[in-house]
Amino acid sequence: MVIDDPAVLADLARGAAFMGSGGGGDPYYSLLLAEAALARCGRFEVISLDELKDEALLAPCGWIGAPTVSVEKLPNGGEAVSGLRRLEAITGKAIDAVLPIEIGGGNGLAPFIAAAALGIPVVDCDGMGRAFPESQMTIFNIRGLSACPSVLTASDGSLNVIETDDNLTHERIARALAVSLGGIAHMVEYPLSGVEAKAHAIPGSVSTAIAAGRAIREARAKGTDAFQALGAALKATRLYPHCISLFDGKIVDLERETRGGFSVGKVTIDGFGDGGRMEIEFQNENLVATRDGRILAMVPDIITVMDRDTADTITTEKLKYGQRVKVIAAAAPDILRDDRALSFVGPRSFGMGYDFKPVEMLNETEKA
Amino acid sequence: MVIDDPAVLADLARGAAFMGSGGGGDPYYSLLLAEAALARCGRFEVISLDELKDEALLAPCGWIGAPTVSVEKLPNGGEAVSGLRRLEAITGKAIDAVLPIEIGGGNGLAPFIAAAALGIPVVDCDGMGRAFPESQMTIFNIRGLSACPSVLTASDGSLNVIETDDNLTHERIARALAVSLGGIAHMVEYPLSGVEAKAHAIPGSVSTAIAAGRAIREARAKGTDAFQALGAALKATRLYPHCISLFDGKIVDLERETRGGFSVGKVTIDGFGDGGRMEIEFQNENLVATRDGRILAMVPDIITVMDRDTADTITTEKLKYGQRVKVIAAAAPDILRDDRALSFVGPRSFGMGYDFKPVEMLNETEKA
Repeated sequence: MVIDDPAVLADLARGAAFMGSGGGGDPYYSLLLAEAALARCGRFEVISLDELKDEALLAPCGWIGAPTVSVEKLPNGGEAVSGLRRLEAITGKAIDAVLPIEIGGGNGLAPFIAAAALGIPVVDCDGMGRAFPESQMTIFNIRGLSACPSVLTASDGSLNVIETDDNLTHERIARALAVSLGGIAHMVEYPLSGVEAKAHAIPGSVSTAIAAGRAIREARAKGTDAFQALGAALKATRLYPHCISLFDGKIVDLERETRGGFSVGKVTIDGFGDGGRMEIEFQNENLVATRDGRILAMVPDIITVMDRDTADTITTEKLKYGQRVKVIAAAAPDILRDDRALSFVGPRSFGMGYDFKPVEMLNETEKA
Repeated sequence: MVIDDPAVLADLARGAAFMGSGGGGDPYYSLLLAEAALARCGRFEVISLDELKDEALLAPCGWIGAPTVSVEKLPNGGEAVSGLRRLEAITGKAIDAVLPIEIGGGNGLAPFIAAAALGIPVVDCDGMGRAFPESQMTIFNIRGLSACPSVLTASDGSLNVIETDDNLTHERIARALAVSLGGIAHMVEYPLSGVEAKAHAIPGSVSTAIAAGRAIREARAKGTDAFQALGAALKATRLYPHCISLFDGKIVDLERETRGGFSVGKVTIDGFGDGGRMEIEFQNENLVATRDGRILAMVPDIITVMDRDTADTITTEKLKYGQRVKVIAAAAPDILRDDRALSFVGPRSFGMGYDFKPVEMLNETEKA
């Protein structure tokens, strides 16, 4: 697939924002950078996992830190390239393609800027199928691959190579670095081969995001219901066929702080009419949504707060008092719902005291 | 110079502890490791700066973090070697010799263990002439050399390469890493050539430490005054010819916490008889000593608290209520007292609101 139309980039940004479950960072700046890169190079090449040679070297990349910071602290634009070049120097091999470590939010677009600079394709896959706040929450860690060598770069030009056998230690190191470098940094991590990508990466996430974003754009143009269009478009995908409208209301309260390299907090939404009250807890990403105390959706299922007029996703750092929103949930792919995956990305891994229950079960009477 | 006698290693440890101004970490564990290394390899070679080839590659090394942590969190013993090996891989050159980034405390001995493992000499010099709490307080930064590439390794086997143009950013990154890795880590930093070492390193610090430690040992054996012996031995050195006894008393109060990767606090000492009261503020190292509110010594001059019976240095993490101590000061070498050096290591660089005054001036009537 070739992307040579800025509208498709915007579709990707819109869809990735939805798949971010509120996290991954607002794609606005990434979209601007990707549009500029597209203007320079004319086209982005997106290839499928099948097209990879077994011995290819692939570099997942994305930003680590608090999305609240990313809104104010702009990148210098060269972070990804210097990280990728260093990975090439370490491995002694040229990188054949890049991929988003997480498709969600701005991180879904981040690799395109690097790909353009290096003249290599982006693979239609990612490492999370959505966005998660911590580095070890990638499918590559769940499947036992190493995060290292990883390269973390920041807007001040500093560069760090991290090597450790333990992926949790890697997250701790990378998080401390991101905090010390101002709250946000770019990271190239979990370098992997073509064989490993085919076996473990989450396939089709880039094209899923584009399909979701396009559906919203086309519905807007036609003046039809963008949320229905989104649901219909996702239904045709392998990753997110089950999409549920959880809530419709107005944000009446918001607690949010930047802590330990994360943006953490809780948003409260009053339903229109007698729709009750929804609370959503987040750590970069929306984690658990309750209505009147009853859980309606939980991580790793997607919970996304969207502008009820435009169907634009409101990432957690953009939440504000007074916004009129719909809350949309989507069932996580099976790959994130088995016992081993849930031990890394289920509610207990976020300190919640309960096991995962699928959003379809929690909303059996209320399908969108 | 060859060191093949464990007693000389112990002299070095004793003298380095004095030169640490309370910091650099208690040399106890470093001494044990160095003794074990000596038993394995039979000898350490110490060379002078003159013996270095201009194009030699030299690696300053030492531990970064809070000395309070180093007492409880033991090294795995391989940190220095893995850091040095990585520096060799990065530069594509073999390291010709190592040196202590700071002669003070355990860091004065740290390079010996690495030198033994690599079969290379230690240079009779260091980067601080004493110990300072922060990485950019080295003469190499004062003279405009770069800290990078630096390699930080920790007891869990993790390894970080840091590259940044700015040495203050380097300190911030390294400190955050040390904290995230449990509070203490080994660092190889400010790699430099033979030419650069001859121009900028502080010469003779290893032999000065040995001379100081030997004087104390020999006085103890003879039953003579170890403090007088220390003063006489230092008088014959180029680095620390001016040594002053500031105070004699008992520790009656101690505030100390481990904060931001440092051990910070204040110790209060009541003088014997009507000797008044001394307070010493420290950040890893003792920074300012006041008697009854009047400043008697300040950084970068050395302020060391010593056991009044044994003349063993009590590093800041070993201070305790009830210890009977003497406080000894020594005038810093001129190299640390010019305006440029003071802008990095003078009292204002530690947040004090006054300019540096030499310990000789502050104690004109009270020479030891």
